[in-house]
Amino acid sequence: MKTPSKRAILNPNPNNLSSTREAGFSVEQLAKILNATQVGHTDVKIHGIASLGSARPGDLTHLSNVYYRKHLKHTKATVVILARKDVDDCPTVALVVGEPYQAYAQISHLFDDQPQVAEGIHASVDIHPSASLAENVRIGPFVSIAENAVIGADVSIDSGVHIGANCTIGKGTRLYANVCVYHGVQIGQFCVIHSNTVIGADGFGFIPKSNGELQSIAQLGSVKLGSHIDIGAGCTIDRGALDDTIIEDGVKIDDQVHIGHNCKVGAHSMLCGCTGLGGSVEIGAHCILAGGVGVAGSGPLSIASKTTIGAMTFVSQSITEPGTYQGATLHTDIRSWRRNAKRFTRLEDVVQRVLKLEKQLAAKVRELEK
Amino acid sequence: MKTPSKRAILNPNPNNLSSTREAGFSVEQLAKILNATQVGHTDVKIHGIASLGSARPGDLTHLSNVYYRKHLKHTKATVVILARKDVDDCPTVALVVGEPYQAYAQISHLFDDQPQVAEGIHASVDIHPSASLAENVRIGPFVSIAENAVIGADVSIDSGVHIGANCTIGKGTRLYANVCVYHGVQIGQFCVIHSNTVIGADGFGFIPKSNGELQSIAQLGSVKLGSHIDIGAGCTIDRGALDDTIIEDGVKIDDQVHIGHNCKVGAHSMLCGCTGLGGSVEIGAHCILAGGVGVAGSGPLSIASKTTIGAMTFVSQSITEPGTYQGATLHTDIRSWRRNAKRFTRLEDVVQRVLKLEKQLAAKVRELEK
Amino acid sequence: MKTPSKRAILNPNPNNLSSTREAGFSVEQLAKILNATQVGHTDVKIHGIASLGSARPGDLTHLSNVYYRKHLKHTKATVVILARKDVDDCPTVALVVGEPYQAYAQISHLFDDQPQVAEGIHASVDIHPSASLAENVRIGPFVSIAENAVIGADVSIDSGVHIGANCTIGKGTRLYANVCVYHGVQIGQFCVIHSNTVIGADGFGFIPKSNGELQSIAQLGSVKLGSHIDIGAGCTIDRGALDDTIIEDGVKIDDQVHIGHNCKVGAHSMLCGCTGLGGSVEIGAHCILAGGVGVAGSGPLSIASKTTIGAMTFVSQSITEPGTYQGATLHTDIRSWRRNAKRFTRLEDVVQRVLKLEKQLAAKVRELEK
Repeated sequence: MKTPSKRAILNPNPNNLSSTREAGFSVEQLAKILNATQVGHTDVKIHGIASLGSARPGDLTHLSNVYYRKHLKHTKATVVILARKDVDDCPTVALVVGEPYQAYAQISHLFDDQPQVAEGIHASVDIHPSASLAENVRIGPFVSIAENAVIGADVSIDSGVHIGANCTIGKGTRLYANVCVYHGVQIGQFCVIHSNTVIGADGFGFIPKSNGELQSIAQLGSVKLGSHIDIGAGCTIDRGALDDTIIEDGVKIDDQVHIGHNCKVGAHSMLCGCTGLGGSVEIGAHCILAGGVGVAGSGPLSIASKTTIGAMTFVSQSITEPGTYQGATLHTDIRSWRRNAKRFTRLEDVVQRVLKLEKQLAAKVRELEK
Repeated sequence: MKTPSKRAILNPNPNNLSSTREAGFSVEQLAKILNATQVGHTDVKIHGIASLGSARPGDLTHLSNVYYRKHLKHTKATVVILARKDVDDCPTVALVVGEPYQAYAQISHLFDDQPQVAEGIHASVDIHPSASLAENVRIGPFVSIAENAVIGADVSIDSGVHIGANCTIGKGTRLYANVCVYHGVQIGQFCVIHSNTVIGADGFGFIPKSNGELQSIAQLGSVKLGSHIDIGAGCTIDRGALDDTIIEDGVKIDDQVHIGHNCKVGAHSMLCGCTGLGGSVEIGAHCILAGGVGVAGSGPLSIASKTTIGAMTFVSQSITEPGTYQGATLHTDIRSWRRNAKRFTRLEDVVQRVLKLEKQLAAKVRELEK
Repeated sequence: MKTPSKRAILNPNPNNLSSTREAGFSVEQLAKILNATQVGHTDVKIHGIASLGSARPGDLTHLSNVYYRKHLKHTKATVVILARKDVDDCPTVALVVGEPYQAYAQISHLFDDQPQVAEGIHASVDIHPSASLAENVRIGPFVSIAENAVIGADVSIDSGVHIGANCTIGKGTRLYANVCVYHGVQIGQFCVIHSNTVIGADGFGFIPKSNGELQSIAQLGSVKLGSHIDIGAGCTIDRGALDDTIIEDGVKIDDQVHIGHNCKVGAHSMLCGCTGLGGSVEIGAHCILAGGVGVAGSGPLSIASKTTIGAMTFVSQSITEPGTYQGATLHTDIRSWRRNAKRFTRLEDVVQRVLKLEKQLAAKVRELEK
């Protein structure tokens, strides 16, 4: 079973080239869009985009990562986006650009065949009469929208989505199937939220009573998302206790990310899969948190803008200097690990023994030198 | 865009002060509810609750955490809940209590404006005729309830929830949108379960056959939740293989927590976000597992009551003594980390070299002393 | 409240013994199914299966794990599956087999009382006219199936499931409530996918533009699942950027597992709860990744077939030799941890001091020996 490479069929063309979508793109058209230097020529029209290793004639591909260079000379693609240094090894037409990966990112949307939610509002929906829907809203089946929600123009809401009372959803935002948005949440324009993500559930606020039972604290804040935010599937972004949880413009969040109450994530930061932020964590702008990072401390905690945190790192203290940080340990065979991990539990003792050795040796040396 | 502070509008008033909700509360009323000493007086009625830094006139606020003390002298709030030691720095009316955070937790519910599920049963639901619904049940759209389920009085079930056959849901419990409860699960009274949480999916039981394929083990147990349990969004609590998975009264579970089959979580324990329990883990009562904790061993594993486990800790062996435990590593700049983490993979060698040094030095010393 | 042990009521009997399900099984029947040596006899019919500790008369149980051996002599079960070495301590009828746990896995399905999705197609569904449904498909309420989806024979789809355009779902596969399958995803035969799992959401592909904003890369690949795959609740398996994300036959995935775009998981591998794979990770066949494992590197990364990774391990480099690997640290009391973890951040310094000591001592020894 071989998947055909992806064809440009359905999507609105961001470059007003819609008439050419089905006919395919000429190499010259693609070169112009990318402002690329074309090396070689072909009359073959480009209908699809694929990776170097799996591309076929009629496909566009790209070489952006040294890991895949070995596939260049054997590629079956008709056109390859690449950097100047790789052009001599290209067996076919090349589009030479300064940043091949960026060029690929840009051109990839020409070939996106992702289906839209069907036009209009499905008959099965449950929309409160007080909710307001702007023009060109698309709403799939089994969607519920509660009182006073305000849905902007061109919003797409897929099946099974629940939108609570008093929410606002900005223009052009897309909510995939089964997303849940609690009451009072504000979502900006042109956001994308993938399936089964939950925005605005109660923050985790409980304190022990004198009898050991846990008393809940009402979570009265909400969640405010800016614009141009992408959120993956299965995420949870909790509402604030009093003030709001805030995600600024352009933030990109991968799948299964958890953001606790009263966090603030600065503009254009990236949070990779399975990362979790405890309550009241403040992430600056343009940060990258790789996968599986955990940020939580005994009090509020902040990470400076332009900070990168490596995968699986535990951040328990604020980071005030931008830079790249990492925690965690490396894997080894399990026998070595058992010994090393056990030693780690007494690392202080080892260091004390080294200190003692240093003192003993120095004393002995002094003694001998007398 | 500024969010107004939260107003007390909709919620049932736990102190029978409903007539005063819209009119606002007098400071004297709040002092009485909290059994607080009032310092100063105002005729301004309290309509909202907000944090020290964002409160406005007409708001109540609290000072419970030293991190926020800097905001006290500039607060615009009309009333501040605080401890005796902070009263002199308070620029406005103070309510002095022994435990300001507890007092705030208690009073916060007066101002909760969270909408309820609409009264009655939505016309779109699919409820099996054999299911039994007690009085005053509220059921939103697109809910399915299978055969022989028993839904207690005052239960609220939001849109898109699925309840399997033979489940019981106790009085006053609330299930938020798109929660899935598998067949035979028992949920006690006054529980709160947030969106997209799944209770009772199959435990992960597979064993390799001689040909390397994996054979499933039927998961015939169920899940039993006690009463007064709160569960966050996106959690998974698996059914037992033979015996049930058990969550006792008053347990509080944050978002994206995973509880494997046949676990038992003792009363009034807290599991913070992204924590995962492997199969057959037994957590005692009054435990706290911070965020991102993983508990899994080669056999069943238990944690003593009143144990606290710090964030991102891997617990691979039972803990029999109550106390506070921690694992994981601290972050550093990535260059230091690379060197240190590499050394960790040979920590045993380092220790052996220290031991050798100790022996050599001791031998040399003895030799010299002869 | 005591749960009755599980009764064999509803399920199709894999051994064509359906007539005996309600009547119960004789020990001789069970011995024959398991190819076991029967020690002792009873006329009591076996109606249920339970653990050693909670079994009652009329139940079958098993002893497979040394942790539970203490319960053997007190068991109330009528029949115990066990190994030859334990037969002398068995107070009741024994079925002696070579591999008790495998025998229990096999026989457990006789007693599975899990309800099926109701026959037929619920009236509330939204199925596109171009979708194709094979015979004996069961579809619950509030399910949406988009254009050109192909649903195989005997497929069960529970309430609230969303299936995107152009998906194919193979024969006998079961999707539990609120599963989301994006467009173009291919799922093989006899798979089981638990609630709120999302398959085919966009991979996490963003690159920074020169102004620091993040540009998305269209995710044009899809997800291909083989046959006989089990996936737990709350998982996310992302679609590929160009090529597909691939899960091969017989893979078993626990709850809350995340699989990034363009990963490939080899046949018959197991991924335990809360494990996350970054993009372009390739896991071989017959691997076991325990809970909370994170696999992510700076480039594509692969793990050799027949590799086992221990819980909470961070794998940042490829593993080329099959074996058992582990990372992470062990927990200790928090005071010791604070000291040790701080020392870890300067482990290289400690090692350098040991090296220096070795040199000093060697020099001094040489000096003295002159």
